[in-house]
Amino acid sequence: MKDSALLTDLYQLTMLQGYHDSGMEEVAVFEFFVRKLRPGRGFLMAAGLEQSLQFLEGLHFSSEELAWLASTGRFSNGFLVQLETLRFTGDVHAMPEGTVFFPNEPILRVTAPIAQAQLVETRLINLLHFQTLIASKTARIALMAPDKLLVDFGLRRAHGAEAGLLAARASYLAGFTGTSTVQAGMQFGIPLFGTMAHSFVQAHAGETLAFEHFAHAQPDNVVLLIDTYDTEAAARKVVALAPQLESQGIRIKGVRIDSGDLADHARRVRQILDAGGLRQVTIFASGDLDEYLLRDMLAAGAPVDGFGVGTRMDTSSDVPYLDCAYKLQEYAGQARRKRSEGKQTWPGRKQVYRSYGADGRMAADVVTIEGDAQPGEPLLRQVLQGGRRLAAPSLEDSRSHAAADLARLPEPLRQLQEPYAYQVEISAALHRLAEQVDRGL
Amino acid sequence: MKDSALLTDLYQLTMLQGYHDSGMEEVAVFEFFVRKLRPGRGFLMAAGLEQSLQFLEGLHFSSEELAWLASTGRFSNGFLVQLETLRFTGDVHAMPEGTVFFPNEPILRVTAPIAQAQLVETRLINLLHFQTLIASKTARIALMAPDKLLVDFGLRRAHGAEAGLLAARASYLAGFTGTSTVQAGMQFGIPLFGTMAHSFVQAHAGETLAFEHFAHAQPDNVVLLIDTYDTEAAARKVVALAPQLESQGIRIKGVRIDSGDLADHARRVRQILDAGGLRQVTIFASGDLDEYLLRDMLAAGAPVDGFGVGTRMDTSSDVPYLDCAYKLQEYAGQARRKRSEGKQTWPGRKQVYRSYGADGRMAADVVTIEGDAQPGEPLLRQVLQGGRRLAAPSLEDSRSHAAADLARLPEPLRQLQEPYAYQVEISAALHRLAEQVDRGL
Repeated sequence: MKDSALLTDLYQLTMLQGYHDSGMEEVAVFEFFVRKLRPGRGFLMAAGLEQSLQFLEGLHFSSEELAWLASTGRFSNGFLVQLETLRFTGDVHAMPEGTVFFPNEPILRVTAPIAQAQLVETRLINLLHFQTLIASKTARIALMAPDKLLVDFGLRRAHGAEAGLLAARASYLAGFTGTSTVQAGMQFGIPLFGTMAHSFVQAHAGETLAFEHFAHAQPDNVVLLIDTYDTEAAARKVVALAPQLESQGIRIKGVRIDSGDLADHARRVRQILDAGGLRQVTIFASGDLDEYLLRDMLAAGAPVDGFGVGTRMDTSSDVPYLDCAYKLQEYAGQARRKRSEGKQTWPGRKQVYRSYGADGRMAADVVTIEGDAQPGEPLLRQVLQGGRRLAAPSLEDSRSHAAADLARLPEPLRQLQEPYAYQVEISAALHRLAEQVDRGL
Repeated sequence: MKDSALLTDLYQLTMLQGYHDSGMEEVAVFEFFVRKLRPGRGFLMAAGLEQSLQFLEGLHFSSEELAWLASTGRFSNGFLVQLETLRFTGDVHAMPEGTVFFPNEPILRVTAPIAQAQLVETRLINLLHFQTLIASKTARIALMAPDKLLVDFGLRRAHGAEAGLLAARASYLAGFTGTSTVQAGMQFGIPLFGTMAHSFVQAHAGETLAFEHFAHAQPDNVVLLIDTYDTEAAARKVVALAPQLESQGIRIKGVRIDSGDLADHARRVRQILDAGGLRQVTIFASGDLDEYLLRDMLAAGAPVDGFGVGTRMDTSSDVPYLDCAYKLQEYAGQARRKRSEGKQTWPGRKQVYRSYGADGRMAADVVTIEGDAQPGEPLLRQVLQGGRRLAAPSLEDSRSHAAADLARLPEPLRQLQEPYAYQVEISAALHRLAEQVDRGL
């Protein structure tokens, strides 16, 4: 994933030309937030900060990109010279990755000369939106199956390579056990899981031969796919094959079912395995899964030990985008506000304070202006100063934080009982600032 | 977009280890197809072939990747040595990009030694699925607004950088006029469009000053965003500003509306502009648009000249994934078939023939086995031979082909009257082959 400064909308560059020509180079404050929840989401989980900060730290135009921009004839030479030395020198405040958040709460604030803060809008939204989307979806799945092996299977139907890689990262952050995406293992250190495909079985003259070949090739990872032709018949072949493999020192670890009524097949396969003395062999299910199907299967007592979840998680298929924005809240020391219909924003630099109940669960949040201290824990912290990183938590750290925050969710949200109105209060100080800004228009 | 051979699922590599250990290296035939249409799609448009072929031509493991694979302890040395020299040496047959297609019709066939054909499954699906998804969505939008300026605005909410770039490409292929994504302009030569954001207006002390600054900075591209505070009031400011700009040789080209009831605002703004002598100033609308909203706005006579379409197109939000697969259809000269419940495949190497009616519109397709000539036009052609490209149509060529195919759609499909059952016949020869394969199991 090589970031380019041209991963931006044309209007960012035409606006930058405008700021340049008018000599506007004061400090701007932008904030990223979600306007409102869509049906099917009661809370969100912040993710994508690490890639956002890497993008800001590496921001520059290559000489090839500058030459191409010049060739378009859209920009002045003076402006292109300015772009040549443009780097990100600003500050960033943010909620740590893995933090649960709600609408109207900024999860990232950029404070920088306006050209810098404006240019990065598109890619920052692109990075924060997607990982937040996936972490928020995954958290729901993880809450439904807390003690199960949960593996991301989604690269093939993710929207491109970066989506697949970042979905592997975001799902691991939000509580998954690992991924099948090999490059995500190399790049992020995420544990890898994998079995075999139907094509492996089909390429062999028979299922048993395919199982034997696989067992010998991967003796420490013998998970056999049993639904290519007839699921229960294949389970009986596994039982028949086990003693022979055992005598060669190879233990069958599990079987995978990928089609039909998964709960029903799992029950029948469990019986066949148990009757055949294979109580230790686990059952892994995959195929069009999401949080609702997992909940229903487990509530019905389906004997499934692990799940491969792909398409519906990696595309967040029920809610494939969030209503998020990155908006100018202050310029040259003056708070600003957009008032477009249905898209008004709260002005100024903000902080979010969170209170917890006696049970340790989240009780309520207050969104206020920076400096207006409120009871509770402030959620935004400075992470970049003058373009340099202050701290870089590891993915494991962020994963622990996510788990801790999910444990502190109000119980109805943990149970996906939505809509549930978590209290997010806009402070009196913020109301006053908004009125002030409106009077000044 | 640097492709890596590790953009794959772990199971591809564990299966490859299995093929290696068992000495299985015969030729395999895999085909990519969509199993069934989901509600909201009456036809599909093939896209992503160009990136798929680039991926196959460049396939190799870097020394860094091989060292990392070795470090996992999952693979034998003999197998890793084989990976070191692995390249794609097979053949590919495919429908040209921009071809309209239907379920059960392969749009790509890979014929190669099984290790190669298996390894590339994940990334081929990832590339073909996403661009086909977006081209299929975009074609619907383009059909609803045939004579309008249509611009992709979706990078920010696309699922990652590659999704944004490939959505710009797929939407241009399917009939859009251009994109706002700068890198897509540089990389694919797609025409770029852009105006200004609310932040530009907000950063100025007043709207008129922002409009003036922008007009001077982009005198050939003066499209002014008028909904930051009050849309109609801003339209009147545009009217008031026009003579002054005109006297400086600058013509206002258009205005953009991004919130509220777009049709209603467009009508009122049109009146204000016309009354102010700005009949030539166009109106551009954006904000949560899709094919249904465009159809309704245009049917109601909304005076809109162009549309910026982002999130709902770049995420294909109503149908964010297709039920597609890449399946083994033949190994070592023998046809194969998967029989998992609800996921059976048709075996063997296939061809699709399309017949047209007297009106030039598509009438019916036949899917049959290769060599079983049928009336009509064969849709799959060889594009890669022994790992080398036979032809590489330009994006403009593919865009023309897409337009021609959309013009040949049956009228109900052009009008999005769904469900509409286009006839796709499975030939007698293919039925016979499936029975033959089943008997052999």
